[in-house]
Amino acid sequence: MSKNKQFVEKITAMEDDFAQWYTDVVKQAELVDYGLVRGTMIMKPYGFAIWENVRDALDRKIKETGHSNVAFPLFIPESLLEKEKDHVEGFAPEVAWVTHGGDEELAERLAIRPTSEVLFCDYYSKNIHSYRDLPKLYNQWANVVRWEKTTRPFLRSSEFHWQEGHTAHATDEEAAKETDQMLNVYADLAENYLAIPVIKGRKTEMEKFAGAKYTITIECMMHDGKALQAGTSHHFGSGFAEAFDITYLDKDGKSQFVHQTSWGLSTRIMGALIMVHGDNRGLVVPPRIAPTQAMIIPIAQHKEGVLDKAYDLRDKLADIVRIDIDASDKMPGWKFNECEMKGYPVRIEIGPKDIEKNQVVLVRRDTNEKEFVSIDELEVRLPALLEEIQQNLFDKALAHRNEKTTVVKSMDELEKALKENPGFLKAMWCGDEACEEKIKEETQVTSRCIPFEQEKLADTCFCCGKKAKEMVYWARAY
Amino acid sequence: MSKNKQFVEKITAMEDDFAQWYTDVVKQAELVDYGLVRGTMIMKPYGFAIWENVRDALDRKIKETGHSNVAFPLFIPESLLEKEKDHVEGFAPEVAWVTHGGDEELAERLAIRPTSEVLFCDYYSKNIHSYRDLPKLYNQWANVVRWEKTTRPFLRSSEFHWQEGHTAHATDEEAAKETDQMLNVYADLAENYLAIPVIKGRKTEMEKFAGAKYTITIECMMHDGKALQAGTSHHFGSGFAEAFDITYLDKDGKSQFVHQTSWGLSTRIMGALIMVHGDNRGLVVPPRIAPTQAMIIPIAQHKEGVLDKAYDLRDKLADIVRIDIDASDKMPGWKFNECEMKGYPVRIEIGPKDIEKNQVVLVRRDTNEKEFVSIDELEVRLPALLEEIQQNLFDKALAHRNEKTTVVKSMDELEKALKENPGFLKAMWCGDEACEEKIKEETQVTSRCIPFEQEKLADTCFCCGKKAKEMVYWARAY
Ligand SMILES: [Zn+2]
Ligand SMILES: [Zn+2]
Repeated sequence: MSKNKQFVEKITAMEDDFAQWYTDVVKQAELVDYGLVRGTMIMKPYGFAIWENVRDALDRKIKETGHSNVAFPLFIPESLLEKEKDHVEGFAPEVAWVTHGGDEELAERLAIRPTSEVLFCDYYSKNIHSYRDLPKLYNQWANVVRWEKTTRPFLRSSEFHWQEGHTAHATDEEAAKETDQMLNVYADLAENYLAIPVIKGRKTEMEKFAGAKYTITIECMMHDGKALQAGTSHHFGSGFAEAFDITYLDKDGKSQFVHQTSWGLSTRIMGALIMVHGDNRGLVVPPRIAPTQAMIIPIAQHKEGVLDKAYDLRDKLADIVRIDIDASDKMPGWKFNECEMKGYPVRIEIGPKDIEKNQVVLVRRDTNEKEFVSIDELEVRLPALLEEIQQNLFDKALAHRNEKTTVVKSMDELEKALKENPGFLKAMWCGDEACEEKIKEETQVTSRCIPFEQEKLADTCFCCGKKAKEMVYWARAY
Repeated sequence: MSKNKQFVEKITAMEDDFAQWYTDVVKQAELVDYGLVRGTMIMKPYGFAIWENVRDALDRKIKETGHSNVAFPLFIPESLLEKEKDHVEGFAPEVAWVTHGGDEELAERLAIRPTSEVLFCDYYSKNIHSYRDLPKLYNQWANVVRWEKTTRPFLRSSEFHWQEGHTAHATDEEAAKETDQMLNVYADLAENYLAIPVIKGRKTEMEKFAGAKYTITIECMMHDGKALQAGTSHHFGSGFAEAFDITYLDKDGKSQFVHQTSWGLSTRIMGALIMVHGDNRGLVVPPRIAPTQAMIIPIAQHKEGVLDKAYDLRDKLADIVRIDIDASDKMPGWKFNECEMKGYPVRIEIGPKDIEKNQVVLVRRDTNEKEFVSIDELEVRLPALLEEIQQNLFDKALAHRNEKTTVVKSMDELEKALKENPGFLKAMWCGDEACEEKIKEETQVTSRCIPFEQEKLADTCFCCGKKAKEMVYWARAY
């Protein structure tokens, strides 16, 4: 089986070099290739198919919650970007600028959108007049560009794909409800589709979105103990409305500023998917978003009847699960490895002996367990098994996160935990940015969120010893 | 009903000023708004919902024919764009250039993709090695930028949305088959979803895609007698493969160039939709792509039971058709006009008298005909009516195209037709570009295509009188 060995050797072990393992999986599972321009990526068929499933699931939820899809332009005139002070300061350093159209130099530089708040604000300022025009509940699926210094596929790329929701409401309370609602939509997507448990909470002032009143977030834990922010929802209050003069006449004919939100989830979540579920055999894709939920591998396929039976099986199951067959002339061992690398939830083996016994072998990707199942029972057993795998992936990820979560009550405990069991560090905080800055500088640990589910772990800030205000999740993060 | 009158007056009559009528419909049916940057557009919820239905229908067909979606980068390094001579000459004049990332000037300018052939070619050159790697059947849904001088919503905009397929094959014949197949997919979409009859044919050398061996096209006829190219499919032969060194080892171990195609269909087809089916009351959307196929308008909705019954009706029909209800406090007349402006295929009126008789009134958007239907029969009648409307729209468009098609045998006849009945001009052509140039210069008429269905109308070229080679469709075009 030297062929198989060779194949497996292409992935670095997680324990040896996690970053290299990630790069290997991304490449070997054929998710992404590097673009020619620094930091850009090519989403290949398999990577894009997974993203399409994530996107479609989220798109349904966005529509179910009353939002409409729109498509706003790629370009932002420089003067427009500069209208909201905090916002432009946050984004200008990473903007890609268009200066020429054909042979002509443009009168004004155009930013390629790093995010589209200002475009929606400009539109809302012209199209919202009365309380009858509210709420505006818009979303778009778009590519955005941020000229980052260091880039990695999915995690940080110069161009990435996402959805960005932009809404305007009559009251602050309505906007707050929307902000919460969309974070819950993201949490539902992460937990129930991607099998990734999340911590929901509020960002600190230092970590919030440039221009927001507050930002709420879902944070998740990767296999290497680093955290990843998987989706954020921002309440803008009336800050943008004041900068862009977005007003409406209320029922009493009084002019009021609107209250806005924005929320985004990007291809970054593909990085989380890889680093939460993947292992040293490659990618593991949760069944609910897997483009291929089961792959049939015929054994001794040259023998009479094997391929026919395998195709019959596929046809029989095609309405129930997303199923495919690998009838190529490669060796079964090679195909097994391919299934593992691509992370198909279930592999179905069928050979002459199985056919004699009217059975197949189901092999779970998550546990590697084998199960003999009568062909007559497959239509019931296979979907049930997929649900078990979905649940097991979530449970494993949750157990891992719990293992990787340490309560710390001092900077010493924090440093000890970082060495012995890096992960989420739960600690009480005084609320002072000086502590936050100090922790970041000394340990590269940032505040991930002030979780909605608060616990009182101590009375004092683990950093400065002053009176504690809130419990915070801290971690090194992607 | 002064309120209604006011509403209707917002659209210019087609006969008075077709261009203004188009602009009015685009705006009043809430399809699009203008972006801040010259020539960009904002696709609003209703416009985007129609486009989503077109896109989803086409996406299904693209997948059914074996293609995979991918996402390639937005940026093309200048040096890469220059690799294929004809191609860069065709596109360079309308490229938007990125020169700065953040505060830094880039070492090499980046083109924002006007189309992505060179990116796919670069990728294929690195990822195709053997005949086993072929065919590559990739497609992407993307935004592209062309810095056009004159722009109009959907028809010609600086940024537009489309799909672009890029494929690589072992042989010229396979690539030719692919080119044909995808044109047929476009024709199917246009005729069977958008109810727009098309002429299929080949572009002349002058009108083909920059860098292609040949281009085939679907051409359709607008209400004002101008033609519109709704989708094109290009056979590249091995031209790009030679420029980009895309080779594979065949079964005999011999190095061969691949043979490529590309094919694209864009938001431009939304322009065709408007100008083929629209009328002086607004937009008309064919049922198969209508986001709202039927709109319920309650009559005297303040009367007891009316709204309840209307909502019951909606719930009952929601699984069968895409249906909505306008229960706002606007006047029925206003709502009727809104339905017409938006082009919903069917309006369902239900008031106290209807409820007494257990009936509703169905009003067709295409003919304005009214029909009383028992509520018990609606589940059967409504879908059938939608199919009738779909067919009628196609038939009307075909009849219109036939009316607007004139056989011409001389330049005099051409000029007469342009005056009296502008539209498609069927004429024999010698094949000489000099004639094509002359016709274009003198009359702004261009060759639309050399149709696959040839007829022999005469022995000589209508322009120069020399021996004719082929019949060509000519027209002024968008
Ligand atoms: Zn402190
Ligand atoms: Zn001639």
